[in-house]
Amino acid sequence: MVGIGLIGTGFMGKCHALAYRAVSAVFADVAPPRLAVLCDTPADEAEAFARQFGFARATADWRDLVADPAVDLVAITTPNKLHREIALAAFAAGKHVYCEKPLGLTLAEAEEMATAAAAAGVVTQVGYNYLKNPAFLHAERLVSEGAIGRVLQFRGVVDEDYMADPALPWSWRCRAQEAGLGALGDMGCHLVSLAQALCGPIRSLCADMQTAYATRPMPDGAGEGPVENEDIATALVRFESGVSGMLTTSRVAWGRKGRLAFEIHGSAGMIAFDQERMNELRLFQAEPDRARHGSRTILSGPAHEPYGAFCPAPGHGLGFNDQKTIEVAGLLRAIAGEGRASPDFAQALSIERVIHAIADSARAGGSRVRLPG
Amino acid sequence: MVGIGLIGTGFMGKCHALAYRAVSAVFADVAPPRLAVLCDTPADEAEAFARQFGFARATADWRDLVADPAVDLVAITTPNKLHREIALAAFAAGKHVYCEKPLGLTLAEAEEMATAAAAAGVVTQVGYNYLKNPAFLHAERLVSEGAIGRVLQFRGVVDEDYMADPALPWSWRCRAQEAGLGALGDMGCHLVSLAQALCGPIRSLCADMQTAYATRPMPDGAGEGPVENEDIATALVRFESGVSGMLTTSRVAWGRKGRLAFEIHGSAGMIAFDQERMNELRLFQAEPDRARHGSRTILSGPAHEPYGAFCPAPGHGLGFNDQKTIEVAGLLRAIAGEGRASPDFAQALSIERVIHAIADSARAGGSRVRLPG
Amino acid sequence: MVGIGLIGTGFMGKCHALAYRAVSAVFADVAPPRLAVLCDTPADEAEAFARQFGFARATADWRDLVADPAVDLVAITTPNKLHREIALAAFAAGKHVYCEKPLGLTLAEAEEMATAAAAAGVVTQVGYNYLKNPAFLHAERLVSEGAIGRVLQFRGVVDEDYMADPALPWSWRCRAQEAGLGALGDMGCHLVSLAQALCGPIRSLCADMQTAYATRPMPDGAGEGPVENEDIATALVRFESGVSGMLTTSRVAWGRKGRLAFEIHGSAGMIAFDQERMNELRLFQAEPDRARHGSRTILSGPAHEPYGAFCPAPGHGLGFNDQKTIEVAGLLRAIAGEGRASPDFAQALSIERVIHAIADSARAGGSRVRLPG
Amino acid sequence: MVGIGLIGTGFMGKCHALAYRAVSAVFADVAPPRLAVLCDTPADEAEAFARQFGFARATADWRDLVADPAVDLVAITTPNKLHREIALAAFAAGKHVYCEKPLGLTLAEAEEMATAAAAAGVVTQVGYNYLKNPAFLHAERLVSEGAIGRVLQFRGVVDEDYMADPALPWSWRCRAQEAGLGALGDMGCHLVSLAQALCGPIRSLCADMQTAYATRPMPDGAGEGPVENEDIATALVRFESGVSGMLTTSRVAWGRKGRLAFEIHGSAGMIAFDQERMNELRLFQAEPDRARHGSRTILSGPAHEPYGAFCPAPGHGLGFNDQKTIEVAGLLRAIAGEGRASPDFAQALSIERVIHAIADSARAGGSRVRLPG
Repeated sequence: MVGIGLIGTGFMGKCHALAYRAVSAVFADVAPPRLAVLCDTPADEAEAFARQFGFARATADWRDLVADPAVDLVAITTPNKLHREIALAAFAAGKHVYCEKPLGLTLAEAEEMATAAAAAGVVTQVGYNYLKNPAFLHAERLVSEGAIGRVLQFRGVVDEDYMADPALPWSWRCRAQEAGLGALGDMGCHLVSLAQALCGPIRSLCADMQTAYATRPMPDGAGEGPVENEDIATALVRFESGVSGMLTTSRVAWGRKGRLAFEIHGSAGMIAFDQERMNELRLFQAEPDRARHGSRTILSGPAHEPYGAFCPAPGHGLGFNDQKTIEVAGLLRAIAGEGRASPDFAQALSIERVIHAIADSARAGGSRVRLPG
Repeated sequence: MVGIGLIGTGFMGKCHALAYRAVSAVFADVAPPRLAVLCDTPADEAEAFARQFGFARATADWRDLVADPAVDLVAITTPNKLHREIALAAFAAGKHVYCEKPLGLTLAEAEEMATAAAAAGVVTQVGYNYLKNPAFLHAERLVSEGAIGRVLQFRGVVDEDYMADPALPWSWRCRAQEAGLGALGDMGCHLVSLAQALCGPIRSLCADMQTAYATRPMPDGAGEGPVENEDIATALVRFESGVSGMLTTSRVAWGRKGRLAFEIHGSAGMIAFDQERMNELRLFQAEPDRARHGSRTILSGPAHEPYGAFCPAPGHGLGFNDQKTIEVAGLLRAIAGEGRASPDFAQALSIERVIHAIADSARAGGSRVRLPG
Repeated sequence: MVGIGLIGTGFMGKCHALAYRAVSAVFADVAPPRLAVLCDTPADEAEAFARQFGFARATADWRDLVADPAVDLVAITTPNKLHREIALAAFAAGKHVYCEKPLGLTLAEAEEMATAAAAAGVVTQVGYNYLKNPAFLHAERLVSEGAIGRVLQFRGVVDEDYMADPALPWSWRCRAQEAGLGALGDMGCHLVSLAQALCGPIRSLCADMQTAYATRPMPDGAGEGPVENEDIATALVRFESGVSGMLTTSRVAWGRKGRLAFEIHGSAGMIAFDQERMNELRLFQAEPDRARHGSRTILSGPAHEPYGAFCPAPGHGLGFNDQKTIEVAGLLRAIAGEGRASPDFAQALSIERVIHAIADSARAGGSRVRLPG
Repeated sequence: MVGIGLIGTGFMGKCHALAYRAVSAVFADVAPPRLAVLCDTPADEAEAFARQFGFARATADWRDLVADPAVDLVAITTPNKLHREIALAAFAAGKHVYCEKPLGLTLAEAEEMATAAAAAGVVTQVGYNYLKNPAFLHAERLVSEGAIGRVLQFRGVVDEDYMADPALPWSWRCRAQEAGLGALGDMGCHLVSLAQALCGPIRSLCADMQTAYATRPMPDGAGEGPVENEDIATALVRFESGVSGMLTTSRVAWGRKGRLAFEIHGSAGMIAFDQERMNELRLFQAEPDRARHGSRTILSGPAHEPYGAFCPAPGHGLGFNDQKTIEVAGLLRAIAGEGRASPDFAQALSIERVIHAIADSARAGGSRVRLPG
């Protein structure tokens, strides 16, 4: 049994905890992990969460967690600025590492982490959970089977409105040194993960970027604080395959709550998807009879693995958290020597290179930036 | 800690198991239940499922489970024909009972079970899980707050296509003695549960019913077997409030995978919902400026309790199984003396009276059937 | 050239005028009609509309119009209470008659009109214009080709909110003697026209009916006036084919502006349609690969005749008025001896019998009413 | 009465003819135009179309039409390569000119035409008909009233699949000298017209462009012919206001039949639109109660001028051709001295500058191109 050390109890921390508890009941082939240590601060809150989530013990010191022999896998769901230090310590201790995205605040950090992962030789996983949605997995399958022919164009968008209110006070999210990138780091990297899964690696791009609200009111009422990262970013990309693409993200998109949408055009059809309707995939396939031309809306079901592990009835719907359970299953299988965790640190680096290239191009007025091949 | 005895490991059995594992991690106020005994046949499968779901022991004999002092709550997810006998035994043993819908094969069975529940004085819960969807709970709140004014009409539909294929072989589902009602029992009662939650009790109705495929091929190839229950049913109803309604259900509705949809019209607005998009609620509210008239699509989020216990970000989506976790939370709270489990056996009986009245009216050529007040 | 005498210049009067002007330009095979006489009151408004719509002369007396030898076709778009008298006069004068629906205020009127039409031996047409939508015509074609197999159930709804506001003053629409039926006469008959076109004649039904607002404020402020006809009606129907159906209509359905929607379930598929998206048809066809199961959204185009007469590009969209142009084309062809106008008075009677049967059943508490075979 | 000389009888020619016939009947304030001369080749087809469309005479020589004193307005719906020569001749003859988009094959042509228009001092109109959709006009009104606050980002797409089939034979559309630009000229300019109407002039951009099928089979079977213009184009734009935008177009987008969609994000809300559902506008407006957050779908109606001139009932739907009738009304009013035709040649030039700048940037590898201020 794999001993889990979970650091963080926020949005992703709770999501991890639920997945660890569910995974072996959902998937008969996955041995149940052991919930060993939970870390957060302050200590009493860590204790409370350990009880709620079912962890054997709590600590307020992540180094304590990393050092605990009961911990085989270090799961990092802290604010981004701590990812690098914890991951490097975990590698040094020979632990497997499961890190939420993005890997690091900067590309340099991400590179350092990927290098350390390779050197450590452990199993790594980065939390690009939307890749595990059965509807998305089906899209991947359709594309690779040629259901839409040769891919011609990819267009994607990832939008939320968590910073759309101009009256929202300044926070650490506005600060480059603490948050790193803005919308690109929070959401844009998810879109890149889907794009590259469907179309292969991105090789060059031109981009634009904007801060919609240059300042925000300080929470203490003391004037305005500067917003140092982007609210909106957009890029024209070229994949290695020659396919062209368009990506855009906004954290100030009123009305969008969890939109992560794409369409992919091919020589024989088209696929469209929107995570706000995560159990639906739209598929158009060209046929000679134009009277029947139409995009079909496919509802996820047992025909779209691994949906059936959750529910034997189609169209009943998985939720956001179920994606994490699928991700955890893959990770635990990889630790048990079956298959490979994906995306691992190396793959995550290739995703995050793109968002940093977008920022670089935008800062340079849109000039073309090339990515390593 | 409440000791759970779970009988059945199919669709609903697994759904229960996942909910018991998740509930205390999702809801900080709910003490974790103890997974005591799992029952199914044959014994080796019960053993395997007990391991997978995390139960302390397995048995192939439900009487053994009911009798086990470690079991405080008997959860019944067996085929419908066993509900009555197990429930009565559990009541006799003084156990709390959590039964999947419908209560019984016949109205007489359901009445007997509800009477026994009342006499036993234990906590009961029936698995009308769609009532727990935060989007539906929000619809209830909107209606009771008067967001759509005085209710004028309710229209609902519940459709799936699990028996839409005429080539699907005959099975026990086609037999009245084993399955009870057809579409009404499988799905129609869910629709009634939503209708009565929004509009109050149904007091009279006229109905029609059809068996689309009178026979089905026997699985062994030996000719055709008769289908003894309805594939389709429809009813015109009147609620106690005077509001009129229309209900329809089909298990032969090609293309519908988990449709449980309604619209409710009021003097000041309208609400529409479809479980196939379980995280969306459509709301129209009349306003003087007709240029802005439009139904809004509300995505579930933390503003719609208890969504936030699963995920702090709106629009990310709950799944079918999450509804069960909410149901289990309510049940465990009721056992702990906080609040009331709902629907309990008495409330479930009032739901199931309606589906039997529909069948009665249809058999009588559509004549009006009145329900007890 | 067919000389048109148009009576009425309101909603439908203008719609007629536009269709007469467009029809021969849209359809190369249709000779242009001659816009002979326009009738409305008062005379000066009739004059103004004659100029606007391009009619040769105006009159305030419909008998003058009927008598004019320049008029070959009498088009009746007046309030319903005048339909009968004008139609009978036009038949007496040997004119072709084009009447907006419903034929008469009462079933007796409609029967008298249909009898007179048969005796007159002229061409008649009743304005069930939604039957002419290319998307609907395609649905008819799909059903008759067997694209969804044997038909199992029809469900339809027609809703608007033109009387949804409880503060809307009392008007002639609330008075049975002037308006005849309420929602059933205004809209319900349209739904019946679609249902019977797809599934054949309705042979029996049970129904319910309601007046949501029993009184409305008198326009002069002098208290409240009684609403004598239904706001809402619903029926369970059986078609001659044995297929079951459900129909409902409401004129108090907030948020619905032109909803005329149906779904038709078959043994091999399903079709769904909503006139609010009049250029879309949803089609599900069962196939063995459940991973590709999905309803496709077909956009009207030249593959759906006669869309191409309006526009050679698919998906560009026809409008409400274009349906009338198609209807007029059929009528003019029939007058020219090519094909048959449909629905004529006899067919319209069979439609309107159904709405009166619905009202009869509802008044009798939902008891089954049979229609002549 | 304005005498119309219409050149061309194809897609747009017929659309013009229908609009000329409808306009004065739809709009009481517009005097009916006189259908003077119709031009097409060969002469007998021109004759047939003149009869069908109701023109007084036909000619096969556009110079004859331009010279005819009965012609006040020259309407050009020919292939693009003839626009320039005809327009210049019409200006020379002192005629008003109504030209379909794009103005010219090249930017130089468009500039020459706009210069000539200014010198001629006549009324001009270019057929950017989507600007006249009441739903779009309402979007403009909402934006200018501040319904979505300060505009932050514009995203638009215009897609069709008329060249999506790789087996579609080579035609003049593939040849730069005859067709000019590809998707940008056919469709992209429409998107730019909407973008600039909502957000003001575009001032700089970076773009990418692709030919999905480098060659196409020659119609005579003699090998493959080269495709000389773009199938796909995408641009990042900056408006003069500082707002950023993203535009993309494809003529090889399987499943898209008439998609012209945008979303515009503001500091207080969002508007989304798709011409494939041309009677719907989606509007999100931020409000404090997050439980009611949702995009509303507004159906066009009389509250959205000039919808009511076509139909007094909301939600009944206008069609593609109705947009042209609105455009013609504006043009005829301008000729009558009331208001200004828009977009005229000068405004159309500002639209078309953008599509040529997109092509220029793409040819230069995505480098930023600036547009004159």
